[in-house]
Amino acid sequence: MLLLQPRGALSSRVACPAHLPTFAFSSARKLCARSPAVLAAADEPARQRVSAILQSGLQMVGQEVTVKGWVRTVRSQKSFSFVEVNDGSSLQGVQVIAASDIRGYDVVDALTTGAAVSVVGVVAESPAKGQSVELKAVEVALVGDCPAESYPLQKKRHSLEFLRSIAHLRPRTNTIGAISRVRSALAYATHNFFQELGFKYVQTPIVTASDCEGAGEMFRVTTLPVQQSDKKLDDAADFFGRAAYLTVSGQLSAETFACALGDVYTFGPTFRAEESNTARHLAEFWMIEPEMAFCDLQGDMDNAESFVKHVVKYAVDHCAEDIAFFSKFQDKGLAARLDAVVNKPFARVRYEEAIAMLQKEIAKDPSKWQYPQVEFGTDLATEHERWLAEVAFGTATFVYDYPKAIKAFYMRDNEDGRTVAAMDLLVPGVGELIGGSQREERLDVLQAKMAEAGLREEDYWWYLDLRRFGSVPHAGYGLGFERLVCYVTGTANIRDAIAFPRYPGSCDF
Amino acid sequence: MLLLQPRGALSSRVACPAHLPTFAFSSARKLCARSPAVLAAADEPARQRVSAILQSGLQMVGQEVTVKGWVRTVRSQKSFSFVEVNDGSSLQGVQVIAASDIRGYDVVDALTTGAAVSVVGVVAESPAKGQSVELKAVEVALVGDCPAESYPLQKKRHSLEFLRSIAHLRPRTNTIGAISRVRSALAYATHNFFQELGFKYVQTPIVTASDCEGAGEMFRVTTLPVQQSDKKLDDAADFFGRAAYLTVSGQLSAETFACALGDVYTFGPTFRAEESNTARHLAEFWMIEPEMAFCDLQGDMDNAESFVKHVVKYAVDHCAEDIAFFSKFQDKGLAARLDAVVNKPFARVRYEEAIAMLQKEIAKDPSKWQYPQVEFGTDLATEHERWLAEVAFGTATFVYDYPKAIKAFYMRDNEDGRTVAAMDLLVPGVGELIGGSQREERLDVLQAKMAEAGLREEDYWWYLDLRRFGSVPHAGYGLGFERLVCYVTGTANIRDAIAFPRYPGSCDF
Repeated sequence: MLLLQPRGALSSRVACPAHLPTFAFSSARKLCARSPAVLAAADEPARQRVSAILQSGLQMVGQEVTVKGWVRTVRSQKSFSFVEVNDGSSLQGVQVIAASDIRGYDVVDALTTGAAVSVVGVVAESPAKGQSVELKAVEVALVGDCPAESYPLQKKRHSLEFLRSIAHLRPRTNTIGAISRVRSALAYATHNFFQELGFKYVQTPIVTASDCEGAGEMFRVTTLPVQQSDKKLDDAADFFGRAAYLTVSGQLSAETFACALGDVYTFGPTFRAEESNTARHLAEFWMIEPEMAFCDLQGDMDNAESFVKHVVKYAVDHCAEDIAFFSKFQDKGLAARLDAVVNKPFARVRYEEAIAMLQKEIAKDPSKWQYPQVEFGTDLATEHERWLAEVAFGTATFVYDYPKAIKAFYMRDNEDGRTVAAMDLLVPGVGELIGGSQREERLDVLQAKMAEAGLREEDYWWYLDLRRFGSVPHAGYGLGFERLVCYVTGTANIRDAIAFPRYPGSCDF
Repeated sequence: MLLLQPRGALSSRVACPAHLPTFAFSSARKLCARSPAVLAAADEPARQRVSAILQSGLQMVGQEVTVKGWVRTVRSQKSFSFVEVNDGSSLQGVQVIAASDIRGYDVVDALTTGAAVSVVGVVAESPAKGQSVELKAVEVALVGDCPAESYPLQKKRHSLEFLRSIAHLRPRTNTIGAISRVRSALAYATHNFFQELGFKYVQTPIVTASDCEGAGEMFRVTTLPVQQSDKKLDDAADFFGRAAYLTVSGQLSAETFACALGDVYTFGPTFRAEESNTARHLAEFWMIEPEMAFCDLQGDMDNAESFVKHVVKYAVDHCAEDIAFFSKFQDKGLAARLDAVVNKPFARVRYEEAIAMLQKEIAKDPSKWQYPQVEFGTDLATEHERWLAEVAFGTATFVYDYPKAIKAFYMRDNEDGRTVAAMDLLVPGVGELIGGSQREERLDVLQAKMAEAGLREEDYWWYLDLRRFGSVPHAGYGLGFERLVCYVTGTANIRDAIAFPRYPGSCDF
């Protein structure tokens, strides 16, 4: 039954995209020109992406194309079969009509969900609803079969919790496939935003001996055995000659580059060894951290607002089908919320003012609040954050100038002596999405703040050097990438927003 | 002396780039439109990048601009001073002419290398060689001074080895600044290449319980104390409920996504706990790993060739000044070599044929070779690789169909029974840049290969599932990103190609 194609016919080169942005145009032709060695072997038809065929509308009608992908559904009639083939390029598969008299129809007849196939067919206008074109098969070949009795993905709906137990197969489902595509688009839009504004990408270290915000929640990285005799271990014997950890933030490293290249950003994995088993926390997650020289807190908020608008707009424009799917099945209000983020200006409110607004609101009926006690110095709870963004301002909202006592040592002291130039971005439906600040650039003030926080200057000598030599005002922020993915896709559990989630007790796959 | 500007005047918003690629155009205006809250405070002049002023040629002559950056050199004459200001946006700084009668000239008079300044000036045609424009200062303000006696970066040339000891300041130098800009461009070009071809970016896990190529060189990740009593440690007590390690490759995870989304790539950090103290090895480095479904080894090489050409061309086009600098000071043949990579087709040769060529060449004078003994089964040494790419073919060269015995278990067996569908890309001046293969997609063959390699099926159950359920031919490759950075910049030591290098005994900063 296995009708494997000859090896020479497998080459996957995809047709050259016609809509490369201008700067890539000159190289685009080169990308698609095979070198002479390849031309000789290139007698097989190029594989077409399903997304390209569906997007072409009626323009490709009559053309013969080759599609390779996985069977989603098969419906057999007397003299023909409908096969939906999905290749992961889009949510929707292409419908293949295979008449019983084509070459290899015995293959079609035995197809099951999950089988890999190669289809040569002619694009035709579709009489069916929800698709403009379909494929009239000329030839169908089975590439890899899929035993129906043991395949964990069936045609029915599976719970996201079940899918986590088969995380290696779940991108084959509509939901996780769509999240993966949106995640990829958001990542690219991130690079695109910063690069087009002239920011440089800095890949800050994962293994580090420093600790950005106070230890206790870091993973140790070691080549020593974790079991040892009773004697005290000598850290100097370890691989790096000292105790080393997984980074919790790239900020301090990014600051060194901002103070040389001007505007930089990082985008890399960060780690927290917290024992949190919630839908909002991961032990390993990706973080985006821009850092800008000669920038104050207002400039920081300007950039953060532009950034969020840009990446959301990019996803809405480039993943319309996936987001429509989420709006339908995962979160009815999603499309409207994303539209508001892109088109409405964000609000900005000083922390002290936000507290006053909350106090006034809570006084109306304290029983409606889980934490009715709110005053200057209170760390806002999610219910407070959501009320501010969803009710009070009805839009994404920056809260800024937080009390010094609840913020990190590196944030710049304001003139009032009790607040720092810090900001959080609160978004409707989620709460905090971004946290940022202007950094303390005055050497003496920073030294005093470090002493207050119990940090030793010798551990931060290089960080202090940035204030010793040509110090400049600078600011930045951090955005947890998986929270952004959840926000844009309406995904409730952060474990579904990353390929292979890591949390206490779990590093499978 | 400190003439700090009022805080409101620090906002760093940079002028909107005029040349956004088409797809970003509609949002570009939005990026630059301040929200109402910001407009109110936006009475300060926007900061201009030095690169933008220098690139404008004579078009900006007569315009008043504000530049913020760091002083590289100061030359004081009787009635005026020349100050070179660099903001990290380009190799070259802008020359500022400050006449002694301007506001704040006492500041100019006392400036030293490394000080941070803000300059308001009028763009003027420059009579000097090597620059088309300069700035006639209207006002200079000192933002952060820099004590000349203790600043480690002086006007003289510093060794790269010395600069590694002050890695937090070295991006302020010409060489490391330029490498950092090229690195950022290569990273963006990587995303650009794959995204425009419809590949999806997958961020594969850093912490993992699996091991791609055989253990022994992995870092353990733990929350347990590394010292313990004599009793055997229970791995189940660790954070993830089992022993966990830093990943050595994202390939196996990427394969799971390729078998769902079709074409994917990873770009993330990987780790090797080797005790190698060479100029070619790092304990932490970034790797690019595309993985393509329905692709064979020829398609794999097609993609790798297009990729290398695209990213090198992007760097040459976007970092011309930096690459000219490297060609002049670091590697005379660089520009010609990069030009050849972009414009000459890569060669392809089967391993067995390459061995025959080497044997013939070595026979002429074996004394010229460190490893004259070459036969089927030999792992090529760097001298062999470089002879093939530099002399025999005179261009980047793929060697493929390697002996099974010297390659990994997951590579696809060829029909001859003694080779696998693996390839390495050798480039002149460097040697191996890429290693890739078609993956073994036949369940029974893969199981037999794993048994031969001594691997337990239960550790790879999910990897085998990909061959159980809708298996497809697929292929991919890995490229060490720092090697690419070295290659494109002519940098000899890989420790200078990454922000903060990690190697045995070193995880500083």
